[in-house]
Amino acid sequence: MHVMILGGAGMLGRKLAERIAAEGGLAGQSVRHLTLADVITPQTPHGFVGTTDCTAVDLTVPGAAEGLLTTRPDIIYHLAAVVSGEAEADLEKGYRVNLDGMRHLLEAIRAEREGSAWRPRVVFASSIAVFGGDMPDVIGDDYFLTPQTSYGTQKAMCELLLADYARRGFIEGIGLRLPTVCVRPGKPNRAASGFFSGIIREPLAGQEAVLPVSEDVRHWMASPRKTVGFLIHAAGLDVALLGDRPNLTMPGLSVTVGEQIAALERVAGSRATALIRREPDPVIARIVDGWARGFDTARARALGFEAETEFDEIIRVHIEDELGGKIPAA
Amino acid sequence: MHVMILGGAGMLGRKLAERIAAEGGLAGQSVRHLTLADVITPQTPHGFVGTTDCTAVDLTVPGAAEGLLTTRPDIIYHLAAVVSGEAEADLEKGYRVNLDGMRHLLEAIRAEREGSAWRPRVVFASSIAVFGGDMPDVIGDDYFLTPQTSYGTQKAMCELLLADYARRGFIEGIGLRLPTVCVRPGKPNRAASGFFSGIIREPLAGQEAVLPVSEDVRHWMASPRKTVGFLIHAAGLDVALLGDRPNLTMPGLSVTVGEQIAALERVAGSRATALIRREPDPVIARIVDGWARGFDTARARALGFEAETEFDEIIRVHIEDELGGKIPAA
Repeated sequence: MHVMILGGAGMLGRKLAERIAAEGGLAGQSVRHLTLADVITPQTPHGFVGTTDCTAVDLTVPGAAEGLLTTRPDIIYHLAAVVSGEAEADLEKGYRVNLDGMRHLLEAIRAEREGSAWRPRVVFASSIAVFGGDMPDVIGDDYFLTPQTSYGTQKAMCELLLADYARRGFIEGIGLRLPTVCVRPGKPNRAASGFFSGIIREPLAGQEAVLPVSEDVRHWMASPRKTVGFLIHAAGLDVALLGDRPNLTMPGLSVTVGEQIAALERVAGSRATALIRREPDPVIARIVDGWARGFDTARARALGFEAETEFDEIIRVHIEDELGGKIPAA
Repeated sequence: MHVMILGGAGMLGRKLAERIAAEGGLAGQSVRHLTLADVITPQTPHGFVGTTDCTAVDLTVPGAAEGLLTTRPDIIYHLAAVVSGEAEADLEKGYRVNLDGMRHLLEAIRAEREGSAWRPRVVFASSIAVFGGDMPDVIGDDYFLTPQTSYGTQKAMCELLLADYARRGFIEGIGLRLPTVCVRPGKPNRAASGFFSGIIREPLAGQEAVLPVSEDVRHWMASPRKTVGFLIHAAGLDVALLGDRPNLTMPGLSVTVGEQIAALERVAGSRATALIRREPDPVIARIVDGWARGFDTARARALGFEAETEFDEIIRVHIEDELGGKIPAA
């Protein structure tokens, strides 16, 4: 099996490649070849026994996707995107990378498969940012998509493209609306949601974190481990079960910032929570106010997707996966 | 006031221009200038007292939209599209005309308004084809969009674009999901929905019509007169009332093919209905099976949009507006 990861240098792409390398396979088949592509050259995952191609490629350049697809991967993970803050600040870049990138990919697949039986599975990382504005506390599987950011708009448009190309038989398409990934490791990025991770990650490392919103803000989260688990699970899913609706809201945990902080105190004590500095930011507060607070993900759960059920577990996953099982600041 | 109609040579574009010409104004203001654009040169409406520009232009050609918009119209009706049958048969043309055309238009507006206070109202003709697949009999205003055709996919993507450009303040955006227009005058086009009109229009003209589906097929319809009324009403709407969701399902009449035929018999007698020839077409039946049967359009009705409430009225509107008040075959 040949697996391609677009966005292979990003946080999720790297973790997915490492998981595939560690397990040696995907969907019950061994993975012999891995192609990792991104705008910067991705790294070969540790311990992978197959062959790896790590390529720097810009999918927004016409012809780039075609060149990549001549090797006809069995599964293509499309995780490459400009994040919400950047897509809002730079309209042209957001549409070029997030929308045109997807369109180039799908068109390149259509061109490459011409006259052949090759029909790759495309697993697309969508986002709960496709929802927005005035919403119920719990959003069901048939609730309409009303993004309030350009990022969410682009993801929603890509979902529609994915569904149309799947319906026409060019791909096996699966779109996963990922929760906010928390605790996101590494440096803060330009996502407006960054503080949900920052208020856990920085105090655990003995550093101060800024909280720009009030503690009653509620949001939908899953750990990086579970998020990669969604991507892995999508590889083996019977696509016939998706019917004519290949985009699914992923399970997550609906939690308030106050509950996050209480869990941090249980796991790491008040020395950690004392490092959270309240610094209200009306711009971020306004953005976050337009985000979903919770979902009923009956379809995804029936298809076997699973997330954490309490925030303490999300913190423990971070400590295990990122901090070697120990709290540095403790 | 300067009004621009893209798709001005199409059935709705012509009727809209004629209505504006007849009324001399729109949204309580007099219309002094009318720009009609289409891939073929539109005709000047009869009796219009202002000036008219009729232009042949292909919005899919880069730069074409920019050239058109230097005159800064106050209202832009975007009705130009490749219909469902053609968008399904020709994937590239459908995406080029229906998606890229909209994107070029919005980007041209954004470029033209740079540094100015000009912010045109864009009234976009979307379609109930944005819904599809397994649906409830009555679809509410917050039901998700799951198109099962490329045409519906493109319309849904355009709705998202419209909402994003409106949210960012580049336009005043209003998207109207139009019901199937019935009785559509003139020759059949390549829309798979054509028979809904054909089984009324042809028998009234003493000609045979083909019915490719069973009589229990239920669908959502409005007359051309009411449909043009939606477009007119959108011109004067307070966009603040749309909040962050500028796309609205328009009112219509939920009616079965059998009810259409019964109404035809009441209005024009059994000599008319005898001209309907049953010729089941599994391809059309399959397409139509994925279409919406009815809606609860509470939002649009609260905003003052109105449609017919019985099919006899739809037939009478056709006889009045298209046949000079008489049934030729009677």
